[in-house]
Amino acid sequence: MTDSPSGADTYPRTPRTTGSRARDRMSYDRASVHAVLDDGYLCHLAFVRDGAPVVLPTLYARVGDRLYVHGSTGSRPLREAGREDGGMPVCVTVTHLDGLVLAKSAFHHSVNYRSVVVHGLAHQVTDHQERLMALDAIVDNAIPGRAADSRRADPKELAATAVVRVGLEEVSVKSRAGGPNDEPEDLGLPYWSGVLPVSPVYGTPIPADDLAPGTPVPGYLTAR
Amino acid sequence: MTDSPSGADTYPRTPRTTGSRARDRMSYDRASVHAVLDDGYLCHLAFVRDGAPVVLPTLYARVGDRLYVHGSTGSRPLREAGREDGGMPVCVTVTHLDGLVLAKSAFHHSVNYRSVVVHGLAHQVTDHQERLMALDAIVDNAIPGRAADSRRADPKELAATAVVRVGLEEVSVKSRAGGPNDEPEDLGLPYWSGVLPVSPVYGTPIPADDLAPGTPVPGYLTAR
Repeated sequence: MTDSPSGADTYPRTPRTTGSRARDRMSYDRASVHAVLDDGYLCHLAFVRDGAPVVLPTLYARVGDRLYVHGSTGSRPLREAGREDGGMPVCVTVTHLDGLVLAKSAFHHSVNYRSVVVHGLAHQVTDHQERLMALDAIVDNAIPGRAADSRRADPKELAATAVVRVGLEEVSVKSRAGGPNDEPEDLGLPYWSGVLPVSPVYGTPIPADDLAPGTPVPGYLTAR
Repeated sequence: MTDSPSGADTYPRTPRTTGSRARDRMSYDRASVHAVLDDGYLCHLAFVRDGAPVVLPTLYARVGDRLYVHGSTGSRPLREAGREDGGMPVCVTVTHLDGLVLAKSAFHHSVNYRSVVVHGLAHQVTDHQERLMALDAIVDNAIPGRAADSRRADPKELAATAVVRVGLEEVSVKSRAGGPNDEPEDLGLPYWSGVLPVSPVYGTPIPADDLAPGTPVPGYLTAR
C-alpha cells in the first residue's frame, strides 16, 4: 500500500494541514489521499505573484508521492517555478463534487465532496526520462491508455513544454458524505430534505473534422 | 445587459488579467464572465497565509458585480478577511470542464473548458440585509428556488456565519471549444482524434433518513 521512501501509511499532520474546524472530516491517510487524486485529472494550482494569490486550473498526474503538472514554457507560473532555486511555494487542490445536501434549514445545507489539498514547493523537472514519464502520466491520468496510442512529443515539442513536480509531503484529504444533519426541532418542517447526487458523465466521442472516416473509436473511450 | 456602476460592457484589462500566452482564448466581456460564473456554484478560493498560497473549494454566488462566499466564523480565511481593514487579497477561480480533446500527437492534447479568474480583495459583509441576501443567493445559485423553500437562518446561526464579498473588477474569462488542432503532417497517423464531452449530471434525489415518508420531491430538483 505504501510507496513512500518512509513507508508511512499516513502523511504527517502539520499546522497548515490541520483544519481550524470540521476536523472530523479530515484525514492524512495516504491511500485515501491517493484515491482522491487518482479519481481526477483537473486541479487548481495556486501560487503567489507580487504578494497576491493566483489560482489557475490545470491537468495533473500523481506518480508515487509526486504530483506533476505541465504547461507551455511561455506560461508565467511555470517559468517562475523554474527561476526559484528552492522551488516555488504552491498549493494544489483537487475537488470532486458528489452531491448537493438539502437540509430543512438553509444553515445546514452542504455539499458532499472529496478534496485533497497539497502544500509544497514546485520544482522544474529537468531530467529527460522523468519529463517523458510525467507527460505520459498526465495524458494517461485523463485518458487511461492514450499515451501509447498517440504520437509522442518530438524534441521541439518537448523543448516548448515545462514539467513541474510537487512532492506529496504536506497533504490532507477532506470529505463529506451522507444526508443532511438537521436540528431535531426542524424535522417537522414541510421541506424536502436529502441529497441530490452529481457526477461527471462522459458523452459520445465526437470525431475531429479531419479524422479519416472509419477510424475506430478506441476502447478506452467507449468504456467510459 | 450591464448592471455595473460604470455601465461598461467589458472589464478593464490589467497586467494580471492579461495572459502570458493563448490570449485569443481570453475575454473581458462582462456577459461572458457572468455566464460562466452563473453556470457554476463551486469555486476555488485562493489566499496567502504566511507567504504561501492556500486554495480551498467553496460555494459562491454572483449578484451584479459582486461575488459572495460564506463559511463558519471559525474558519481561518474568513476570519482573516475580517481582520484586514483594506480587505484580504484573494483569487477566485471557477472552472467548467466541457471535454477532453484527443489529438494525433500527445503534445496537442487539450481540454475544452470555460474558466473565470477573479482577482480582488475579500471584505467581510457586516450589513444585515446584504448578509441575508447573499446567503439566499448562495443557496439559490446551487439549487434555484431552494432559499424560499427552507427555514431561513435564525439569529444564532447568522452569528456563526461569515459572509465575504469580492468585487468583480479585475476579471477575465478563458475558454477553449472545438476539436483538436493537429499538425498537418500528423493527420495520416492511425490514432483516433476528436473530443470526449464531459458534463456534470444529477442523479435521482435521495431522501434523508429522517424525512417524513410521502414528502414530495420539489420541482426544482426533478427538473435537473
